[in-house]
Amino acid sequence: MFPRLELDPAREVPLYRQLFEQIRVAIEDGRLAPGGRLPATRQLAEELGLNRATVIAAYDLLEAAGLISRHVGRGSYVAAAPVRSLDWSALLRRFETHSTPPAPWSPAEDAISFATSRPSRELFPMEDFRRTVEEVIDSAEAADLLQLGSPSGLGALRRYLLERAQREGLARPGDDVIITSGCQQALDLLGRVLISPGDAVAVEDPVYPGIRFSLERAGARLLGVPVETEGVDPEHLERLLREEHPKALILTPNFQNPTGATMPLASRMAALQAARAARVVVIENDIYRELRYQGSPLPTLKQLDETGNVVELRSFSKVAFPGLRVGWVIGPKALVARMAEVKQWTDLHTDQLSQAVLLRFAESGRLERHLRRVRRAGAERLAAALEACSESLPSGTRFTRPHGGMSLWVELPAPLDAAELLAKSLREKISYLPGRYFAVSRSHTRSLRLSFAGVETEKIRRGISTLGRLFTEELERLREAAEEPAPALV
Amino acid sequence: MFPRLELDPAREVPLYRQLFEQIRVAIEDGRLAPGGRLPATRQLAEELGLNRATVIAAYDLLEAAGLISRHVGRGSYVAAAPVRSLDWSALLRRFETHSTPPAPWSPAEDAISFATSRPSRELFPMEDFRRTVEEVIDSAEAADLLQLGSPSGLGALRRYLLERAQREGLARPGDDVIITSGCQQALDLLGRVLISPGDAVAVEDPVYPGIRFSLERAGARLLGVPVETEGVDPEHLERLLREEHPKALILTPNFQNPTGATMPLASRMAALQAARAARVVVIENDIYRELRYQGSPLPTLKQLDETGNVVELRSFSKVAFPGLRVGWVIGPKALVARMAEVKQWTDLHTDQLSQAVLLRFAESGRLERHLRRVRRAGAERLAAALEACSESLPSGTRFTRPHGGMSLWVELPAPLDAAELLAKSLREKISYLPGRYFAVSRSHTRSLRLSFAGVETEKIRRGISTLGRLFTEELERLREAAEEPAPALV
Repeated sequence: MFPRLELDPAREVPLYRQLFEQIRVAIEDGRLAPGGRLPATRQLAEELGLNRATVIAAYDLLEAAGLISRHVGRGSYVAAAPVRSLDWSALLRRFETHSTPPAPWSPAEDAISFATSRPSRELFPMEDFRRTVEEVIDSAEAADLLQLGSPSGLGALRRYLLERAQREGLARPGDDVIITSGCQQALDLLGRVLISPGDAVAVEDPVYPGIRFSLERAGARLLGVPVETEGVDPEHLERLLREEHPKALILTPNFQNPTGATMPLASRMAALQAARAARVVVIENDIYRELRYQGSPLPTLKQLDETGNVVELRSFSKVAFPGLRVGWVIGPKALVARMAEVKQWTDLHTDQLSQAVLLRFAESGRLERHLRRVRRAGAERLAAALEACSESLPSGTRFTRPHGGMSLWVELPAPLDAAELLAKSLREKISYLPGRYFAVSRSHTRSLRLSFAGVETEKIRRGISTLGRLFTEELERLREAAEEPAPALV
Repeated sequence: MFPRLELDPAREVPLYRQLFEQIRVAIEDGRLAPGGRLPATRQLAEELGLNRATVIAAYDLLEAAGLISRHVGRGSYVAAAPVRSLDWSALLRRFETHSTPPAPWSPAEDAISFATSRPSRELFPMEDFRRTVEEVIDSAEAADLLQLGSPSGLGALRRYLLERAQREGLARPGDDVIITSGCQQALDLLGRVLISPGDAVAVEDPVYPGIRFSLERAGARLLGVPVETEGVDPEHLERLLREEHPKALILTPNFQNPTGATMPLASRMAALQAARAARVVVIENDIYRELRYQGSPLPTLKQLDETGNVVELRSFSKVAFPGLRVGWVIGPKALVARMAEVKQWTDLHTDQLSQAVLLRFAESGRLERHLRRVRRAGAERLAAALEACSESLPSGTRFTRPHGGMSLWVELPAPLDAAELLAKSLREKISYLPGRYFAVSRSHTRSLRLSFAGVETEKIRRGISTLGRLFTEELERLREAAEEPAPALV
């Protein structure tokens, strides 16, 4: 029997390729046995309503691939020893991870996406960016940027960041800087140099999935520390560190992703004290630091630390351009040197054109000017989001009130389920990330993250208002259903 | 007892920092006990021959770090509960690797480095590069480049590379492309998605250390296939695949690093046949392909393959600018999709400015123009290197005669040792990489890699001539020593 073929003229793949592919698969999985005769091209073309040339082109490919042999006047036959592809899905390693969040790129133009924690495209200062790039490529050092570089990063950028960190009391004597391909790579490298399979690591719960995945892939056993409106609870943290002695603790003290929560000074001191007593490495993820929209900056864990046990992660992605992948780590020399060693065999070094562009962007004062604009827009967007949440979300909803950053965290009243509601929201072209993507040991089924920083104010209002209507309707529907008499048991 | 202090005014670190660091370590490891008194600043300054201000600055830092307390008129004391740093060297994971080669960046200006396999800085077409960058940043899509991108790579670059690969018969139906942060990251991602600890992988011996390290870190057990002047020996390879059934085989058929060897067509067919019979994934590292200086291009393994089991690694680094980190992989969709998933949590995505610049550089025809110039220079440098090797290296030396690429491989006569000779060569400011850096199961002590592509012709002649003199002198010395009568045994 010749297999049933399903061709779709709407697909990008030309019909002859589709035909080739389907017959190839039928041969490779044995539905067409070696020696079996294929229909004549004219006959198959008629059956499928295709041009005969299309069928001939497909047979040509099959022949070129050694899958069939053609004999003038006798027809085409499945070749004796069909070529067998490897079963790739069986070859690939499986990773024991929670469900992967949707990839962080853009939905349709008219959609409203609260799903990705990224800056606003329309705020990019294109004229300043162009001027910066031109200064870099016209400089005498431009050719050096094109040559192979150092795993530790571009010398000039490292010096700039280290000196700034020293001035700010972020770098201690004995600290060094390594440039990474964004903060995500810093997490990956730390997982590789610090974590052995089975090591425990304490993380915030809920937590940014990129932190969870890096550590899980390194074989870490994750211990969740609950995050509330004021960040991790210091008493819970102290107890966990004392009892479990994890190897490391990762904290995001400013505008944590996903909750937007900020740790007050007292919590920071207590966390450091607990980490010091338990001799735990502290990794401070402070990539949102400069996105404060209200109140005064608090000292970082790294600034407060007296032990040299805090590793600081920073990045240009949230404050400038995420498309240029440049982050950095400030930490003890021994750690930074080992990270550079591993980085060399991971990707040799970070892209040098972007390192030079971001250095020039910072040094020239343009980054600071851009940040002022970003903070003004962020303050406005945050205010709009909070106002819309107050007005529109069903009563019984709780949400965080961040002082900066990119996201806020909403907990809906029971029995709503944020993941189930997402399908309805997407039909209205509004997206967000349900709480379970950020789960460590709690499930967060009623929660969701709203990333507001990349969305224009008007869309924030409209989007949250629509979400509020959907959530309220669903809540009423579920409550009515619960009130109906139970059907008789028969 | 106050510890012995060793300060070095030649170091970059200021003296007061050195002093601070050494006293800090002495306090932390207990040589200076809590409550112990430090010498007065004046006294210590005299003892060490330092300015007193230097000592005061160090004591200030110690006090700020909570390590000492100072009492006016009574002196300085080690604080009661000294802050203890973690022992970072004990915390960091150790990797079971062979010795790491020196990092691939530039030595002094007047040195001659045959040590790194990289393009020539003075051949970079800076005007074409500047024009390309300007076109990219002036385009309507420039702002999109700055926004968060896709783990699979920039859409326009992926389409360009996939279409080109289809035209060249490199991409099969069902293949896809992922952009990586250079070819090194492709190896790293392949290690992560394909290799489980204990899996065997066949590699060339000698092999590029970046291949060995990626696989070793993934937990692979490496099986070396000897490379001779015509690449891997097909019979040896066939036997090894049949007997050991490794999960994957990595080959560099064109101008292999470090040997410069190229596999003839018959070897390529035989290798594919053996891999197909043993159901082994073939990873074809073809980053030197376009650097052919003589003869006609041979079809790649990927072009010859009929099974869909070959994964192709390519990169812009060797043909354009290694400082911009952009490579790509062509392979079965299932594999490419899994690589993208892992890449997302490794570094989110590859830098987008450089992806767009290299796309424009290729599309505009400037890459092809640059390549013509690079090939002309490469041919001249290769000829100079081969001539100098013939003229200067001691008799009994064997060396490869590559048809392209960046390196050639020299095997010195016994009892010379290339690693021992390197010290002498460095004194004459000439560097190369000894064979042992490329070792898998053979030791290659008599061999060395000469990377000629990034060195100007005149320096190639001078450098190899000097090496020849050194090697010949050492050979004569060793032979004379061997001829001397053995001393009496007493």
